[in-house]
Amino acid sequence: MSKVFVNIGLSLDGYMAPEGMTMENPEYMGWGAKWGAMMSWLLKQQSFRENLNFGPGGETGPVNDMVRHTMERIGANIMGKRMFDQGEVAWPEEAPFHTPVFVLTHEKREPWARPGGTTFYFVNDGPESALEQAKESAGGRDVRISGGADVIQQYLNLGVIEELEIALAPVMFGGGRRLFENIREPAPRFRIDRVVDSSAATHLRYVRE
Amino acid sequence: MSKVFVNIGLSLDGYMAPEGMTMENPEYMGWGAKWGAMMSWLLKQQSFRENLNFGPGGETGPVNDMVRHTMERIGANIMGKRMFDQGEVAWPEEAPFHTPVFVLTHEKREPWARPGGTTFYFVNDGPESALEQAKESAGGRDVRISGGADVIQQYLNLGVIEELEIALAPVMFGGGRRLFENIREPAPRFRIDRVVDSSAATHLRYVRE
Repeated sequence: MSKVFVNIGLSLDGYMAPEGMTMENPEYMGWGAKWGAMMSWLLKQQSFRENLNFGPGGETGPVNDMVRHTMERIGANIMGKRMFDQGEVAWPEEAPFHTPVFVLTHEKREPWARPGGTTFYFVNDGPESALEQAKESAGGRDVRISGGADVIQQYLNLGVIEELEIALAPVMFGGGRRLFENIREPAPRFRIDRVVDSSAATHLRYVRE
Repeated sequence: MSKVFVNIGLSLDGYMAPEGMTMENPEYMGWGAKWGAMMSWLLKQQSFRENLNFGPGGETGPVNDMVRHTMERIGANIMGKRMFDQGEVAWPEEAPFHTPVFVLTHEKREPWARPGGTTFYFVNDGPESALEQAKESAGGRDVRISGGADVIQQYLNLGVIEELEIALAPVMFGGGRRLFENIREPAPRFRIDRVVDSSAATHLRYVRE
């Protein structure tokens, strides 16, 4: 049975993305440096480098094992249109998902298949339909709600997020897109499942109660 | 040399206090239950119970040792007027600080001494003056910025917070007083110092870089 999970990097002050984040201009408001500081731990992991064809090398150990496990468990991704738009110009031709990706959008567009097994499907009839399609196509593996923040919030409010994995980095953005906003009552309930400690980020894993 | 530190409970969604928190009505908007869920781990610790004269018993172990260490290192507290006002009606006669407490306020008022060593001083000339007075009176021990959120933000923006200790509880408030808001650029920089893991809260400790 597919699980529905979130796995993201978060700044200490609660932002998924710094203010001004647009792929066109990494200098704008210093967003590139901020985002890089939040995600630098990930870019160093051997399994992540391998996935992006960055070549050999990289850190091994519990954090790397965790990253590899996360990548291997994903059978389908769901993302918002803004995240897709940013990625469309930034991902390599072999997009780094290797699964079906369901994009929540009002735009009508034919599925877009990339080398390496990623196919983007554009879903016009809402998050519940996208989740249904993602589960069907995940082949028994899990469904990752990739982002952005507003999409994660929609799924939190639907009560369908079963696992919430947060890599909390010791950086402050001072502004941007908050992960936890617009949460409706009663808020979903989670318990702490495990914490993996490292100097670059604290890897928190919560499971729905 | 006195260190300046923060030690607070935080909800998973980043709030220090739930919406509607007023001592007069613990039922209002369910704030009492929310705050209780966030702080329940603390109320169970042996050292905390002892400090509030709750009687014998309580949990011992690494979390309890941490709470005891925190209480012992404090030579002076600084808090905002709203936190004082809430506490004035809620604390027992023997207020639980046992140190000088500097209250940031526009109100002029004579120092107010309580049994057990707590004396409240009302500071009218701003956070820097309060910090100076707190350091002078701390007798070489440390100065805790107690709260609320707006007072912690003022001291973060002054760049004087050397240690930031957060007990991150797996509860969502959905609204209230955010810890990290109004942080000015360049934001203060912290590194992860240590994490103490427990089922009720993740105890994160950051040290200024």
